[in-house]
Amino acid sequence: MIRIAIIGAGRIGHVHARAVANHPQAELVLVCDPFEKNAKELSAQYGVKYCLDPQEVFSSPDVDAVIIGSPTRFHVDHILAAVKAGKKVMSEKPIALDLASAKRCVDELGDAADHVMMGFNRRFDPSFAEIHHRVADGEVGDLQQLIVVSRDPAAPPAEYVAGSGGIFKDMTIHDFDTVRFFLGDIAEVTAVGTNVDEAIKAQGDFDQVLVTLKSVDGKLATIVNSRSCAFGYDQRLEAFGADGMLSADNLTETAVRKASGNQTEAKSAVMDFFLDRYEDAYRIELGHFIEAAASGEAVSPSVRDGYAALQLAEAAGLSAKEGRTVAIEANKVPAAV
Amino acid sequence: MIRIAIIGAGRIGHVHARAVANHPQAELVLVCDPFEKNAKELSAQYGVKYCLDPQEVFSSPDVDAVIIGSPTRFHVDHILAAVKAGKKVMSEKPIALDLASAKRCVDELGDAADHVMMGFNRRFDPSFAEIHHRVADGEVGDLQQLIVVSRDPAAPPAEYVAGSGGIFKDMTIHDFDTVRFFLGDIAEVTAVGTNVDEAIKAQGDFDQVLVTLKSVDGKLATIVNSRSCAFGYDQRLEAFGADGMLSADNLTETAVRKASGNQTEAKSAVMDFFLDRYEDAYRIELGHFIEAAASGEAVSPSVRDGYAALQLAEAAGLSAKEGRTVAIEANKVPAAV
Amino acid sequence: MIRIAIIGAGRIGHVHARAVANHPQAELVLVCDPFEKNAKELSAQYGVKYCLDPQEVFSSPDVDAVIIGSPTRFHVDHILAAVKAGKKVMSEKPIALDLASAKRCVDELGDAADHVMMGFNRRFDPSFAEIHHRVADGEVGDLQQLIVVSRDPAAPPAEYVAGSGGIFKDMTIHDFDTVRFFLGDIAEVTAVGTNVDEAIKAQGDFDQVLVTLKSVDGKLATIVNSRSCAFGYDQRLEAFGADGMLSADNLTETAVRKASGNQTEAKSAVMDFFLDRYEDAYRIELGHFIEAAASGEAVSPSVRDGYAALQLAEAAGLSAKEGRTVAIEANKVPAAV
Amino acid sequence: MIRIAIIGAGRIGHVHARAVANHPQAELVLVCDPFEKNAKELSAQYGVKYCLDPQEVFSSPDVDAVIIGSPTRFHVDHILAAVKAGKKVMSEKPIALDLASAKRCVDELGDAADHVMMGFNRRFDPSFAEIHHRVADGEVGDLQQLIVVSRDPAAPPAEYVAGSGGIFKDMTIHDFDTVRFFLGDIAEVTAVGTNVDEAIKAQGDFDQVLVTLKSVDGKLATIVNSRSCAFGYDQRLEAFGADGMLSADNLTETAVRKASGNQTEAKSAVMDFFLDRYEDAYRIELGHFIEAAASGEAVSPSVRDGYAALQLAEAAGLSAKEGRTVAIEANKVPAAV
Repeated sequence: MIRIAIIGAGRIGHVHARAVANHPQAELVLVCDPFEKNAKELSAQYGVKYCLDPQEVFSSPDVDAVIIGSPTRFHVDHILAAVKAGKKVMSEKPIALDLASAKRCVDELGDAADHVMMGFNRRFDPSFAEIHHRVADGEVGDLQQLIVVSRDPAAPPAEYVAGSGGIFKDMTIHDFDTVRFFLGDIAEVTAVGTNVDEAIKAQGDFDQVLVTLKSVDGKLATIVNSRSCAFGYDQRLEAFGADGMLSADNLTETAVRKASGNQTEAKSAVMDFFLDRYEDAYRIELGHFIEAAASGEAVSPSVRDGYAALQLAEAAGLSAKEGRTVAIEANKVPAAV
Repeated sequence: MIRIAIIGAGRIGHVHARAVANHPQAELVLVCDPFEKNAKELSAQYGVKYCLDPQEVFSSPDVDAVIIGSPTRFHVDHILAAVKAGKKVMSEKPIALDLASAKRCVDELGDAADHVMMGFNRRFDPSFAEIHHRVADGEVGDLQQLIVVSRDPAAPPAEYVAGSGGIFKDMTIHDFDTVRFFLGDIAEVTAVGTNVDEAIKAQGDFDQVLVTLKSVDGKLATIVNSRSCAFGYDQRLEAFGADGMLSADNLTETAVRKASGNQTEAKSAVMDFFLDRYEDAYRIELGHFIEAAASGEAVSPSVRDGYAALQLAEAAGLSAKEGRTVAIEANKVPAAV
Repeated sequence: MIRIAIIGAGRIGHVHARAVANHPQAELVLVCDPFEKNAKELSAQYGVKYCLDPQEVFSSPDVDAVIIGSPTRFHVDHILAAVKAGKKVMSEKPIALDLASAKRCVDELGDAADHVMMGFNRRFDPSFAEIHHRVADGEVGDLQQLIVVSRDPAAPPAEYVAGSGGIFKDMTIHDFDTVRFFLGDIAEVTAVGTNVDEAIKAQGDFDQVLVTLKSVDGKLATIVNSRSCAFGYDQRLEAFGADGMLSADNLTETAVRKASGNQTEAKSAVMDFFLDRYEDAYRIELGHFIEAAASGEAVSPSVRDGYAALQLAEAAGLSAKEGRTVAIEANKVPAAV
Repeated sequence: MIRIAIIGAGRIGHVHARAVANHPQAELVLVCDPFEKNAKELSAQYGVKYCLDPQEVFSSPDVDAVIIGSPTRFHVDHILAAVKAGKKVMSEKPIALDLASAKRCVDELGDAADHVMMGFNRRFDPSFAEIHHRVADGEVGDLQQLIVVSRDPAAPPAEYVAGSGGIFKDMTIHDFDTVRFFLGDIAEVTAVGTNVDEAIKAQGDFDQVLVTLKSVDGKLATIVNSRSCAFGYDQRLEAFGADGMLSADNLTETAVRKASGNQTEAKSAVMDFFLDRYEDAYRIELGHFIEAAASGEAVSPSVRDGYAALQLAEAAGLSAKEGRTVAIEANKVPAAV
C-alpha cells in the first residue's frame, strides 16, 4: 500500500484524491494547501489529515509518495524537496514557467529524474494510448504526419492567463508532449498565433495558435489550438502512416444519435469539461505512478519529458514572435519519450 | 443500339427516359400514354414520336424493347402483348394486383418468363448490391438474419392508396423482393399492421407494418415499414451472418457534418425523394436490361420474382388480417432469385 | 448508510458487490451462497461476513436491504421472505420461470410490490435512458415504432440453456421490458424462432427469434435476438416518432478509427461482455435502488414489471409454437411502467 | 448553345469533354492536341473535328468558348490568344509556373480577367460548396480556423514532378485557392516540407508539406499535404467558427459498413482517383462556366484567383527554403475571391 500526500487542494487535487481513494494499492494520508479552507475540505472528504506547509509533507514518515498540484512556480522546489526527502513524486505540468528553472530541476535530480513523473495525462487517454501502441505495433507502417486538434471549451479568466506563462506553456504544452510521445525528439518548431479574444489579446497572449513541428528524423506534426470552442472540449488526434491512418474523434456522454427534419446522425454534444473528458486518463495515469512507485521502475513521462515540452513551448513563443522557424538545440538532458 | 419505347409517361416514365437517353447502347424511339399531354411532353423532351395506344408500340417494327410503366392493372396485358410481338420487356412492379393474374402471366409466358424483367430497382442500388455480392463472397459467413427498414418520406394521397392494392402490394413489395434477393425462397410470412394516419385507415389500409419472414432453409428476416418519415426516405439494410454484419445506412446529398453547442457530427438530411435516392439504381437497372436485351441472356429479377413477391404480399395481408403465420405454398412457378 | 446483503455470489453478485462498495451511501455487510467457496471468495474480497443459508440474511438485524442474485427458481421465495423480514429488495430477472409463481409473488406482496425492484439494468443504460427521457420530452413527437436489436456474443453452455426457461424468458425478457419501458402495456405478441446452433436446437430451444409487439394504443415494436454474434455484444435501439428518430449504436472501448488500403472509419470492436457493456447501467441501477431504499419511495422497474415481462415471454413462446398472434389478457396486476 | 473547343486531349481533356457532352446548353465542336493520336481519339469519341495547332481553335468562327487543358507552360499564351480572338475561356490550374508570367497575363487581360475562369474544381465540390454557403449564411458564426487535409493516393512519376513546378505550385495550389475561397486575402504564409519519397527528394522537391496561413484579418488556416496516401485520395475540410464547426469527410463509393470480429463500422475504401472523387465538381464547374459564357457575367474563380494562389505557392516555397514566415505583398492585381 503506497501512502500518498497531495499538495494543492484545487480542482486537480480533487481529481487525484478520488483516483487515489479508488486505487486498491494506494491510500490517501495527507492533504496540503496553504489555504486552510481548501485543505480542510478535501481532507475531510476522505477522512485524512491536512497541513498548510509542504515541509510537513516532505518530513512526514507516513508519506511514501507525493502528488504535486501546487501553482507552477512552486513545482521545481516541491519536486526537489520531495525527492530529497525520499518520496516518490508525480508533478502536474508544466515543470516550470522558465526553461532555466526546469533545467536546474533536471540537473539537480540527476538519475532520479527518471523516477519523477510529469502529469501529461493525455498519454494515458485510452484512445490516444491505443493509437500509440497500434502505431508502435506497425499497424500503419512508418508514422509520417501527426495532426493534433486541441481546443478548450472556453477561455480562462484574464487573471489566470496573466500567470499562466502564455498559451504555449499553459495549453499547447500538452500537445507538445503528445507530439513527442509519437514522434520523439523535435528538431524544428514554427508557430503562428492570432486573437479572437480581446481580453487575452490585452494580456499580450495569443488565444489561437497553429504550431508546426519537424522531428529529428524529418516527420511532421501540426497542432491546432483555440482557447474557446462552441461545441465543447475538442480533443482529436490523427496519426498518418505509410500504410494507413489511426484517428481518435471526440468523446460524447452517450451513443445516442438523432435524425430529424433537416439533419441525421446528430450525436449529443462533445464533453466540455477536461476533468470529465480525461477522467479515465487521470485514473490510468495514477495507476502507472503507483505501480512505478511500488516497483521502483522508471516512470514515463518523466520530468525530462517535462523539460523537453517546455523547451518546445519556449521555441514556439520565439518563433511566433520573430516569424521564423526555431531549431531546437541539442538537448543536453537525455530524452526519455 | 436497342430501340426502346416507354409505355406510361408519368414520373417513372421520365426516370427511365433519362436513363435511356444517357445509355450509349440504347435509343428512345417512342413514348406511349393515353393522356396526350403527358405523352407529348415526354416525347418532346427527347425529340421522339409518341402514341396514345399501346398497340402501336407492340406493332411498331422500329421498337426492339418496351419499358412498361403503365398503371398496375395493365401490366400483365402489356407484358403478354409485348412479348408476343417479339419485344424485350421490362415492367414496373408489382406484376399485378392479384395473384391469379400474375400466375396467368407467368404461365402464358412459359420459358419467356426468364426474359421479362421486373423493375425491382433496389437490387441495383450500389450499396445493397455491394452487400449482396460481399455476402455471396462469404465475407460474413452464412447469412442468418436480415433487417430491412423502409419508410417513405410522406404518405401518398388517399386516391392513390385506394388503387394501390394496399401497403403490402404497393410498398412492401420492394422489401419482399429484397428479402428474396438475399434469402431465396420464403416458407412463412407473419405480418402485423397499424395506423398512425387516419386518412389511410379510412381506406381500410395500414400505414405501418412489421413483417417477419422465414426462408425455406430457416433464415429470418424482418421488414419495418412506415408510410411517412420525418427525416426523409429511410432506406436501410442489415445483413447479419455467422462471421459478421454488412449494413447500408441512409444516403445524404453531401458529406458535410456539423458540431455546435448541443450536438456533434450532425449530417445534412437524408434524401427524401425516391427518384433521387435510387437514381443510380434505376440507371444500373436499365443497363442490365439493355445488356440482356442485346445478348439474349435471361434477366434477374424476372417476372417470376414479381410473382413470388406478390405471393408474399398476399400472404402478409392474410397474416395481418387473421393474426397467424401464413405458409407459402410450394411455388409452382419456378423461382429465379 | 444502507447495509446490504447479496444472495448469490456468482458473476452478477460480483457486479453488484463492486457497485455497492463504490456507492457512498451503501455498505456491503453480508454475502450468501450455498457454495461456500463462492461465498468465501466474494466476502473476502470486500472484508465482510458470509453465510450459506439465505435465512441468516433475512433474520440478520444488520441487513437493511437484500440484492437477490440466486438462481431464478428461488427468486420468488427469496423476495417474499426478505420483504416479510422487513428488508428492501432488488431481484435479478426474470421474476420466475412460470407465470403462476410470478403472479403468486405479486399477489402476496400486495402494495409492497411497488417497492421490490427488478434488475432490468438496461433501463439505466445511459444511452437508452437518454432516449427514453428525450422521447418523454417530446423531441421526436409521438413514438410510433421501436426496433430493439439484442444479440449475445456467444451462446451459453447447453446446461445453462436447459435450466434457463428458454430464450424468451432468459434473454428476450430484457427486451420485453425495454419495449414496455417505451411503449407501455402490450396488447399482442407475435414471435418466430429458428436455430443456427445445433446444441440449443437439441435442447428444444430457439437460438434466434424475431418478436413483434403491438401496444394497447397500437404502436409497434420489433425485437431481433440471436444467441451469438461474431462482432460482440450487439445492443442497439431505435425509437421512431412522428417528428424524428433517436437511436443508440453499440459501444466500443475507445474512439479510435482506422483508414487503410481497403476500408475507412473502422472502429475498434464492439464490447463483447455484458458486464463491461452495462457496467454504468448496473451502477446507476444500484444507485436508484439505494435512493429508493433510503427515501421509502416506490421503485421502477418493480416486480410488477417483472411479471408483465414474463407474461410477454410466455405469450411469445406460445405464439412461436402455434404460429399465431397471442393477445395479452387484461393484466390483473396493476402495471407500473 | 455554347460551342466549345478543348485544347489538350489528356486525362483532364476527357473529363471536360464528357461534361460538355452531357450539358444541355453546350456542344463540343473541336478538339486540339499536338499529338494527333490523342486528338483523334478524343474527337472520335464525340464525333467532332480535331486539329493539331491551337491557332486553328482561336481562328475558328464555330468556336464560342475554349477550355484550356494544355501543359502549364502554354496556359498564359493560350489564354491571351483565345481572349483576343473573342472566345470565352476556362483554363486549368495553375495559371503559370512563374509569377511574372501570371502577372503579365492578368495585366494584359485588364477587365477581361474577370471573365477568364480558372479550373479550381474544388470550389464546386458539393460538400465544400455546402460548407462555404453555410459559413456565408452565418451558421457557425465568424470563421476562425480552417484545416485542409489534402493527400494524393500515390506520388506522380519523377518526370511529372520534374516539370510540375514543385509541390506548392502543382498540388498545394488547389488548397491555397480553397483557403482563399474561405478566408479571403492572405497576409502571411509559413511552410515546412519534408520527404518520405526518395525519388521526389532526388528531384529537389518535397513530397509532404504543412502550410500555415494567416489572412489579412487575422484568421488562421493550416494545409496538410502528402503526395501519397495508403487509403486513397484524402480530401477533407474543417471550417471552425465562433459558434460551431462544419466539416467534410472523405467520400466512399457506397454507404456499406461492416462489423466483424475485431472491428465495427468499417466503411469501404475512400475513392482513390481524383477524376472520380471530383466528378460532380468538374460537372458543376463546367455548368458555371457555360452559364457565365451565356450570360456574359463575371466568373469565379477567375485568373485573378489563379494569380493569387500562385503568389501563395511562391511564398510557401520561399518560406520553406528560408525557414521564415513570408508576408504577401499588397496585391496589385485586384482580388476577386
